[in-house]
Amino acid sequence: MDTSTVLYQKPDAIDLSHHLSLLARERLQSPLKGMYKYFNRPGMLMLAGGLPSPAYFPFESLSGQALIPNSYKTSESNFAWIKSFFESKAPKTTTFTIPKFADDAQAIQLSTALQYGTATGLPSLATFIHDFTAKVYDPGYSNWEVLVNAGSTDAWSKICTTLLERGDGILCEEWTYPSALATAWPSGFKPVPLPMDGGGMTAEGLEDLLANWDPEARGGMSRPRLLYTVPVCQNPTGATMTAERKKAIYEIAVKYDGKSSRPPASAPLPSRQAETDAQLPRSTVIIVEDDPYYFLQAGEYSSDASSRIRPTKTETDDEFIASLVPSYLKYDYQGRVIRIDTFSKTIAPGSRLGWTTGNPLFLERLQRANESSSQSASGFTQAFVAKLLVEEWGMTGWLRWLKGLKAEYRDRRNRLVDHLLDQGHAGLDSRSSGSLTAGDAQVYELRTKDSRKRDEKGYLEEMSEKRSLAKKEEGQTLLSFVAPQGGMFVWLRVHLSNHPSYPHHSTNSLLGLLWEQIAEENVLIAPGSMFSGHDFGKEVPSPPEEAHVRELFGLSSNEQLIATAEGDGFFRLSFSTASEEEMQVAAKTIAKVVKRFFEE
Amino acid sequence: MDTSTVLYQKPDAIDLSHHLSLLARERLQSPLKGMYKYFNRPGMLMLAGGLPSPAYFPFESLSGQALIPNSYKTSESNFAWIKSFFESKAPKTTTFTIPKFADDAQAIQLSTALQYGTATGLPSLATFIHDFTAKVYDPGYSNWEVLVNAGSTDAWSKICTTLLERGDGILCEEWTYPSALATAWPSGFKPVPLPMDGGGMTAEGLEDLLANWDPEARGGMSRPRLLYTVPVCQNPTGATMTAERKKAIYEIAVKYDGKSSRPPASAPLPSRQAETDAQLPRSTVIIVEDDPYYFLQAGEYSSDASSRIRPTKTETDDEFIASLVPSYLKYDYQGRVIRIDTFSKTIAPGSRLGWTTGNPLFLERLQRANESSSQSASGFTQAFVAKLLVEEWGMTGWLRWLKGLKAEYRDRRNRLVDHLLDQGHAGLDSRSSGSLTAGDAQVYELRTKDSRKRDEKGYLEEMSEKRSLAKKEEGQTLLSFVAPQGGMFVWLRVHLSNHPSYPHHSTNSLLGLLWEQIAEENVLIAPGSMFSGHDFGKEVPSPPEEAHVRELFGLSSNEQLIATAEGDGFFRLSFSTASEEEMQVAAKTIAKVVKRFFEE
Repeated sequence: MDTSTVLYQKPDAIDLSHHLSLLARERLQSPLKGMYKYFNRPGMLMLAGGLPSPAYFPFESLSGQALIPNSYKTSESNFAWIKSFFESKAPKTTTFTIPKFADDAQAIQLSTALQYGTATGLPSLATFIHDFTAKVYDPGYSNWEVLVNAGSTDAWSKICTTLLERGDGILCEEWTYPSALATAWPSGFKPVPLPMDGGGMTAEGLEDLLANWDPEARGGMSRPRLLYTVPVCQNPTGATMTAERKKAIYEIAVKYDGKSSRPPASAPLPSRQAETDAQLPRSTVIIVEDDPYYFLQAGEYSSDASSRIRPTKTETDDEFIASLVPSYLKYDYQGRVIRIDTFSKTIAPGSRLGWTTGNPLFLERLQRANESSSQSASGFTQAFVAKLLVEEWGMTGWLRWLKGLKAEYRDRRNRLVDHLLDQGHAGLDSRSSGSLTAGDAQVYELRTKDSRKRDEKGYLEEMSEKRSLAKKEEGQTLLSFVAPQGGMFVWLRVHLSNHPSYPHHSTNSLLGLLWEQIAEENVLIAPGSMFSGHDFGKEVPSPPEEAHVRELFGLSSNEQLIATAEGDGFFRLSFSTASEEEMQVAAKTIAKVVKRFFEE
Repeated sequence: MDTSTVLYQKPDAIDLSHHLSLLARERLQSPLKGMYKYFNRPGMLMLAGGLPSPAYFPFESLSGQALIPNSYKTSESNFAWIKSFFESKAPKTTTFTIPKFADDAQAIQLSTALQYGTATGLPSLATFIHDFTAKVYDPGYSNWEVLVNAGSTDAWSKICTTLLERGDGILCEEWTYPSALATAWPSGFKPVPLPMDGGGMTAEGLEDLLANWDPEARGGMSRPRLLYTVPVCQNPTGATMTAERKKAIYEIAVKYDGKSSRPPASAPLPSRQAETDAQLPRSTVIIVEDDPYYFLQAGEYSSDASSRIRPTKTETDDEFIASLVPSYLKYDYQGRVIRIDTFSKTIAPGSRLGWTTGNPLFLERLQRANESSSQSASGFTQAFVAKLLVEEWGMTGWLRWLKGLKAEYRDRRNRLVDHLLDQGHAGLDSRSSGSLTAGDAQVYELRTKDSRKRDEKGYLEEMSEKRSLAKKEEGQTLLSFVAPQGGMFVWLRVHLSNHPSYPHHSTNSLLGLLWEQIAEENVLIAPGSMFSGHDFGKEVPSPPEEAHVRELFGLSSNEQLIATAEGDGFFRLSFSTASEEEMQVAAKTIAKVVKRFFEE
């Protein structure tokens, strides 16, 4: 079977219109479309629109001084480059200008870029993005489309209201990006957290949850139809899903109808569930793949510096693309994946620009949603990004820029992990206790000797003989983490269940106090409780010892963002901006404060 | 009473929290706020955030070549300037550069402008906007706030969902901006059109509608609590409300409780209404003032060119501000006005930038809404607009630019009205027939002789003696309009009830056919049916003669955007971009085609 045959065999998206919300179904089409045939007619006098004359735009031209695409080396460690950057060594740049008017109608120019635009984006930018999506993600069906958006959060917000009704659930990683939940929450879309291991959410966990969904036990919530996932270098855990796991999860989304895949002998679903299945033929799952860190995938960490991948020459475009775990789009033969891409991590967050890829039905409704709110992404942003990508760098230059970024983040990841490991013992660990297990990934630990003894409930008294032995051999584990495959974050497990005052003090209370002690030593990290899908928005009792923690986080007594999870706590450490020296100081400070904290 | 006393006497906004929707009440606060106290601490190592390093922003600097503030003269007719502009005479400009890093932390720089930003906007821009709002609009209460937004449509969308629940009504002008209705519609917020005359919506019409609101007759809809208005140079009618009318409408919004202001002797409200009043203490009205054309207010049109205002020197800032009808904010002593401003007409639509002014409670919820969608306006946009306004032009320069724009649009308005009048007779008319009456405004008409006779139903047969006489004296009126006080639009009434085939053919059918004939002669204008608040979203029967009209507008049989209003129709003509020659040709073409159309 040759490649062209495969290409032609790609199917169209299936009909998924039953997933559309009432809001999405009631969106109106533009009343202007009947006029379009007259818009480009030669000699037409246009008195129909409400456009200001470009003569009144106060900008005659805009210019940019841009880094060259190969500003960042891919062939060696070049973290030092960044340091030199801050020491004002002038980087290599090129300069371009965007005029108000250009003779070439296709050229990027302010008279059109800063004018009212269509919600589909500047045509040349939309075309570039389409080509890039085809080349890098290669979706598994034929009639996919892209839609330029005004940033991932805006896109996610509109996807939610396009597909969900108040009371619907959103399947998500148990530790997840809290802004995604905060965006969905006020519309009545509640998180349904899925178990994770060091490789992201598990297919087994998803299958189990869907198979055994009981609306009555869930306060009447129907089985969720929407899965939100950050599959690569996840925020906050840094976990990256393998291709195999993505395929398995996609197949569950496709095939799952609540009956066929339900284990025959296990607890039968209550009759109400069967009725719901019959009444609502929406039992398959739509996957929303929010993937801001896709191009920061750096591969596995190795503590052996000499074994780190240091290619002697820059990888080819095909090698580069092959080095990235495929998008869910690659496995999507039905059009049930909506992918969100952003320029926030690859150009700048202030761009407020990205794109959505998906089936034509959903994309058309999302375009309508844009028309009724943001209208289009900023014309200033689009002009600069289009000029840079389409007219200056081209596809080759853009891919080269991404290769450089990937190498930079690989180096940053390596440095932070190196310095954390310098503070403790390292070793492979396949434990599966707690909510976040290692899976197949390597876990690194910071340990300390601990001769104190606890009772069975964990109180600091005489321990059982066996447990005491084990502790004496291994020492007390204080911190551990799975090294991330790139991205921006290390997810540091704090073994609070080993703390002397646990469970007298709750996990969050301890985590808050430790966080404050680290902050008082001038290292600011993010408490993991901010990212809990389980505790998001829940009513939480407020014991006296949490008053100080609440005060620390500026939370009033009726605010619920502090989680009350039991067991170990987590911190998220970012390696995206700190210098190597800062990483080293931070790692030392954290180890010092944590050791002191556990000795209290 | 001196001014300072008045200033100090301004009250705070009253509590209007009962207007918040469920969605707005469920919006969450940022979990980060407890960290803020550590953010600016000297020597703090920041590993908490998810920010990319500015080193990886590919833009080292951005530059702009900007027109000088006094590019447009205010002291004489300078429409010719625009023509010379298109003939490539180089305008006077200054050039500025925004660096990635600046020594002055307060200076606008890409490292912060293109980074993730707060939903409140760049601080220097937000401060400038606050000062401008205080100077120009001078709100009537003390604790008003401003919030930088990502364009008016986005702001309006969020205001709707912050204040309304599905099924709520939105009071609006009977002819209105269709995108505002299209934004609200899919959330289940339905338009409740108010009668207009040549000076905008009437206070009497609002009072009458609220006093006699009958939920049963309205399909169960509660009395609306939200008024959407474009009070200045309205789109599409060009109508401008006087200060007196604004005050009267504001007082209705404040005092109206459905009982006190109800005429004692007229139809009493059904008991269900009284119950609703008792149950829901939300009976006052929030006014949303969407005012994109505020600075394009040009004063009254005079057909006598020599009498047109041509000040010999540019007006002072105070004179300029005094020449503009005050905003609703000026009369707002309770915080019930939400004003939406945009840079679309004063800088460029592609900015997707503006600001919202209102009470702290509503603004805080709107900020939360931004955080969950657009996050912030584009950093590229904010950098350029802030650089231009704050660091280049300053307040004086910005006001000078607006004075020039106002003069330009005055000239454009004068030219289009001049050319329309050249095609017909002009005269003062105070008729109040039809849905849009002239009020106190001047109406200009295009008339033609018509000797044909109609029966009482309007069919072309023998007319009654009296009517025939009147027609013979006056001629047949084909077109008429109220000259707008600036803005962008002339609202042309087409007296279709005088057409020979009316009412055989419906208003919309005739309007569509006439529109097509004009378009075929290379003049594209906007059919008024696009702007009908009455017919928006309604089920419309589809008689055979409308099939062609539907086809013209690209509407499928189940789309509802074509109105079926009976009586006269309207066209909206824009004078914002056309050259004087184009206006002249368009006016001639319209008159020619309309005369021919009525003679068919």
